[in-house]
Amino acid sequence: MDTNNYCIIMAGGTGSRFWPMSTADHPKQFIDIFGTGDSLLQSTFRRFENVCPRENIIIVTSSAYRGLAEQQIGGLQRYQVIYEPMRRNTAPCVAYAAAIIKQLNPQANIIVSPSDHAIFDNEQFTRTIEESVRAAQSHDWIITLGIKPLNPNTKYGYIQYNENSVEGNGKLHEVITYTEKPPYDMAVQFLNSGDFLWNAGIFIWSLPTLEKAYRRYLPDVAVFFDKINMNTPYDDIEKLYATCQPISTDYGIMEKTDNVHVMEADFRWSDVETWQSLYESVEKDNRHNAIVGSNVFTYDVSNCIINLPNSKTVVLQGLDDYIVAGDESTILICKRSEEHRIFKFESDIEVHKNKQEK
Amino acid sequence: MDTNNYCIIMAGGTGSRFWPMSTADHPKQFIDIFGTGDSLLQSTFRRFENVCPRENIIIVTSSAYRGLAEQQIGGLQRYQVIYEPMRRNTAPCVAYAAAIIKQLNPQANIIVSPSDHAIFDNEQFTRTIEESVRAAQSHDWIITLGIKPLNPNTKYGYIQYNENSVEGNGKLHEVITYTEKPPYDMAVQFLNSGDFLWNAGIFIWSLPTLEKAYRRYLPDVAVFFDKINMNTPYDDIEKLYATCQPISTDYGIMEKTDNVHVMEADFRWSDVETWQSLYESVEKDNRHNAIVGSNVFTYDVSNCIINLPNSKTVVLQGLDDYIVAGDESTILICKRSEEHRIFKFESDIEVHKNKQEK
Repeated sequence: MDTNNYCIIMAGGTGSRFWPMSTADHPKQFIDIFGTGDSLLQSTFRRFENVCPRENIIIVTSSAYRGLAEQQIGGLQRYQVIYEPMRRNTAPCVAYAAAIIKQLNPQANIIVSPSDHAIFDNEQFTRTIEESVRAAQSHDWIITLGIKPLNPNTKYGYIQYNENSVEGNGKLHEVITYTEKPPYDMAVQFLNSGDFLWNAGIFIWSLPTLEKAYRRYLPDVAVFFDKINMNTPYDDIEKLYATCQPISTDYGIMEKTDNVHVMEADFRWSDVETWQSLYESVEKDNRHNAIVGSNVFTYDVSNCIINLPNSKTVVLQGLDDYIVAGDESTILICKRSEEHRIFKFESDIEVHKNKQEK
Repeated sequence: MDTNNYCIIMAGGTGSRFWPMSTADHPKQFIDIFGTGDSLLQSTFRRFENVCPRENIIIVTSSAYRGLAEQQIGGLQRYQVIYEPMRRNTAPCVAYAAAIIKQLNPQANIIVSPSDHAIFDNEQFTRTIEESVRAAQSHDWIITLGIKPLNPNTKYGYIQYNENSVEGNGKLHEVITYTEKPPYDMAVQFLNSGDFLWNAGIFIWSLPTLEKAYRRYLPDVAVFFDKINMNTPYDDIEKLYATCQPISTDYGIMEKTDNVHVMEADFRWSDVETWQSLYESVEKDNRHNAIVGSNVFTYDVSNCIINLPNSKTVVLQGLDDYIVAGDESTILICKRSEEHRIFKFESDIEVHKNKQEK
């Protein structure tokens, strides 16, 4: 394990797609969506403990979720959890954490990762990261992990790569184009061509490469490297954030620079963005149900996604193709085809509760 | 209100048909199945407060439910709740309570009623009881309330009556035959003939008539009148019960005596025995859903029976013809046509929990 490796885990997202289990106050990264006993953040943190010493892992989250990361991951040093004063997309988030890491180790290798994705082969993941770190270190490259596409999903970024590999293991390639969220027909072409990978949102770069890229493409954000250290008062951080435009690293840097390379990843991955993607990524029983919850009893139930706390006893009979999900006080039963309406259901209930409180 | 009127409410039943809301430990009579704020026992008690002074109401229940009646109905005198030491069907239950009433008022008019039925017109109910009391008092008759049958239900007792009425209001008739739980074809004939009423299980008789009937037809049980008073030690009650065969008043007395008359009842009634009978007896929304629960949100939901505590927020989408029922920790979703399997579901879960505890 290279002690120069540092990880930035981005845990500020608000995704409420798994309502009622995830909510605006307690978003997806903090919930145990797979019923493994670990939240997505906890799994991500554990995964990176194989890549770098645990004290080298920095979690960036929102002040709206104060305390949640510390609750879920014990024994963190104070600098390991950073609270962003406001949402400014990923570029300021990464710069803030990188500025802190610069104080700890100016020669750091930095792995940037979402906190709320799932990876189903930790050993292969570790190997892929280690190979990426080696390449990033020696070439001043930005490495992004690419996932072999399984379907023409229009929500992802597509990376076109040069099929000649640039390093020994045959997995690392030059990036030709990058297309975020293509229209459906284009996504189908990308998929069929075999020349594209999904962008997994995991970047590997050395701190000097990272800082150089910010100074060149995002100079407004690059001031973080001059002005932020571990002792910067929170008010000053707030002022700095207020001056930033919200912008992603993808858009602000990756699409502009020509030193991005893609590492083909060999592990099964899911961004766990929808019940459908969750369903696709987990084991099913012999009636094609994906069940989380130790007290779920099913009779004549098929093709369902069932996700309930162990404290609830639930008997389901005669359901086909439904989502059944809940937390301690709320339960949702909804046709899988109607998943897109969950936001509406959640907001209807908010409206109802606000009315009652008045 | 006639202060000679006394009520015996039988609340010892074990019915677990409304699992998970009702259980062996907390059966149907103690739950608020209609979401009115009152359990069936509480509603029954209130109904009889219009018929007699509240201190004249005796609740007979099982020692398995010790404390539940007192919890639900405040300010009861000690003699008003009687605990049967073992289950012996209704004949010993009524005799035990009647023996206590005899001490209080040997000229009592006694109304015997189940605790777990629903009556949807309390004023009409009061009038019917008052007319029945008058007839029972003046003629040494046993009056049973008869409900106009709505369908050929094979679970009920059918009373054939002489269509000439025997009293002024035109509702009181001689009983010709009594048939408990007829086969389906016979029930259809009964229904079509127009000469039959369902037995509601509510009997009105004077204490002297009642005691005479027991002494003649059930002399083994009639000894209660000689041996039981308010101060009888519980051990002695237990010994007396141990000598009784389980037998119902219907079978032990009503079917044998010739002084039973039936009073046609004009109120809507339900024995609340199944989700189906519950569904038939309550108001439905414009999509034919019967909903109890103040935080139930439905989308594209029709013909469902939904019964959930107010503490639970439940979103249902795309369900047709289901039962959705629950308590704080358990929820059941089941096709209405599969209601008969609920006993099996409940027992499967018991088995599972017992295994886990081992």
